[in-house]
Amino acid sequence: MRSITVLAGGVGGAKFTQGLLSHLAPLNTSRETTRRVSVIANTGDDMWLNGLRVCPDLDTLMYTLGGGISTEQGWGRANESRRTSAEIAAYGRGWDWFTLGDLDLGTHIVRTDMLREGYTLTEVTELLCRRWQPGVALLPMSDEPIETHVRLAEPADEHDTGELIHFEEWWVRYRAGVPAQEFVQVGQEMAQPTAQVLEAINTADVIVLPPSNPVVSIGTILGVHGMREALRQAKAPIIGLSPMIGGTAVRGMADQCLESIGVDSTASAVALHYGARADGGLLDGWLVDTVDAQAVPELRSAGIQAQAVPLWMTDVDSTAAMAQATLELADAVR
Amino acid sequence: MRSITVLAGGVGGAKFTQGLLSHLAPLNTSRETTRRVSVIANTGDDMWLNGLRVCPDLDTLMYTLGGGISTEQGWGRANESRRTSAEIAAYGRGWDWFTLGDLDLGTHIVRTDMLREGYTLTEVTELLCRRWQPGVALLPMSDEPIETHVRLAEPADEHDTGELIHFEEWWVRYRAGVPAQEFVQVGQEMAQPTAQVLEAINTADVIVLPPSNPVVSIGTILGVHGMREALRQAKAPIIGLSPMIGGTAVRGMADQCLESIGVDSTASAVALHYGARADGGLLDGWLVDTVDAQAVPELRSAGIQAQAVPLWMTDVDSTAAMAQATLELADAVR
Repeated sequence: MRSITVLAGGVGGAKFTQGLLSHLAPLNTSRETTRRVSVIANTGDDMWLNGLRVCPDLDTLMYTLGGGISTEQGWGRANESRRTSAEIAAYGRGWDWFTLGDLDLGTHIVRTDMLREGYTLTEVTELLCRRWQPGVALLPMSDEPIETHVRLAEPADEHDTGELIHFEEWWVRYRAGVPAQEFVQVGQEMAQPTAQVLEAINTADVIVLPPSNPVVSIGTILGVHGMREALRQAKAPIIGLSPMIGGTAVRGMADQCLESIGVDSTASAVALHYGARADGGLLDGWLVDTVDAQAVPELRSAGIQAQAVPLWMTDVDSTAAMAQATLELADAVR
Repeated sequence: MRSITVLAGGVGGAKFTQGLLSHLAPLNTSRETTRRVSVIANTGDDMWLNGLRVCPDLDTLMYTLGGGISTEQGWGRANESRRTSAEIAAYGRGWDWFTLGDLDLGTHIVRTDMLREGYTLTEVTELLCRRWQPGVALLPMSDEPIETHVRLAEPADEHDTGELIHFEEWWVRYRAGVPAQEFVQVGQEMAQPTAQVLEAINTADVIVLPPSNPVVSIGTILGVHGMREALRQAKAPIIGLSPMIGGTAVRGMADQCLESIGVDSTASAVALHYGARADGGLLDGWLVDTVDAQAVPELRSAGIQAQAVPLWMTDVDSTAAMAQATLELADAVR
């Protein structure tokens, strides 16, 4: 039994983990060769919406790995409808720019009910996963709420009061089209990694930073007090995959996020932002896409074992090959 | 402008009020002839279900008077679906014997969200009614939760622990098929009528007890501390309509409820249970169905101005005629 621990945001992390599980499936023929996968999920996008606790990244991971995702969207449920949210809108409540589908609402209602009853988010997620059977231990980064808010560099519209807005409002409503001055993790001072998260880090044989957003997904996870230290002290090699290919983000709006923290949108700049483990950073190894192969020598001289392989997650097979390259690089740096 | 105040449970109260509004519509041609209708609604059936506050009688009144009711069922929304509740069930949560439709859920989510934000149930109901425009002031009997629970005379099934069960469980799950030993109004000691309810009673020109359940609908309203006294001190005549015709309940399972409090299931027994106002009770007048005309002399000699008219609410016109008879009896006893 070997243990692989993945730090993940939503869509990118879910796709990578799906490829990882696909790669592992033929290997998992006996207890000796079985790989246990734990996913430490970003909860910084979580929010209260109409009194319900919505956890976008946890749900994207759970639905994708459990077979319930809308493959067209990459988020939300397949065969979704919006009868309930139309009712909420008819009462003049709710946000018209954020979808609460009828199927998805079942998850939010159960989660909210259990949180109100005193269950932790980790316990709630475990119960939800009993139904979805995602094939991984799905672990919220923290049981305490941390919500990423965005301080805008300029007013979003005439109604904007210049205060912080929730990350999802910036991301979904404004499509990250308004420059972000700063990301603030509201609740950070009260939050810590869960015992399950620390165990998944401490007992891992490989730790992976998939091509999730380095700022508002992986960055938020790393921002939990004690998380970075736990990772640095882990015995496992830490291997990352670049979310940048040829100088732009593979998906989402990572460029805008990187700009706000003064990091270039390149495969090497993101690696150097994470830093070499030998040099006080996190990374033992880093995969870049073949088009970014010229970055490999620079990163190696910075103490990060870089390697160039195809990094487009176009389908499960190509993603499985990326997962295989990740595990091979981990063996190489071990 | 004259004011009519109706005490109501769910289906029966809603149907009667619909007839009342139909009767008043052609009269409401000027400010002088306009009748304002207030409905004081039973909230004893309210419950928390999957963390959502469900108010069956308020919603039946609102949907019926606002045109959203399922006319086949008499409760719930027309064109309803159950996608969300199927999801909740798939997680192993929720009660399979109580329906939460997708459209109905919109109401519960908005209500719960606003209650959590600190709005009173009266304020929430007012906001919900801005959409539905029921044509009445719909007033919860109290802003404090009172939940009717049932102490069973015998165990409901092998799982029954002998404790109190929520009224809706007895009513909907067991169809009142297990004898009730006692109805307990949980929360009663902390509850009082709202200011809006007291004003609707104090300023009324007519107060009506429609053919709602005398025990678990009207009885629950009367059980709120101060309600009975406020009614007795009101200047308006109080006219009731018998929910019993020919010795059985017109709808619902009022017989079982009456049995548990030792009242016969007859038009006259229910009137005498409410009591003559002159004699420390509530009623100035009482309408019985024509088949119960023999009860009229007995009730008159007990101090209640009884009258026999058709009391089957088969359609809006017949119900409007009942409302007219109610207002005429109020004028006669005034």
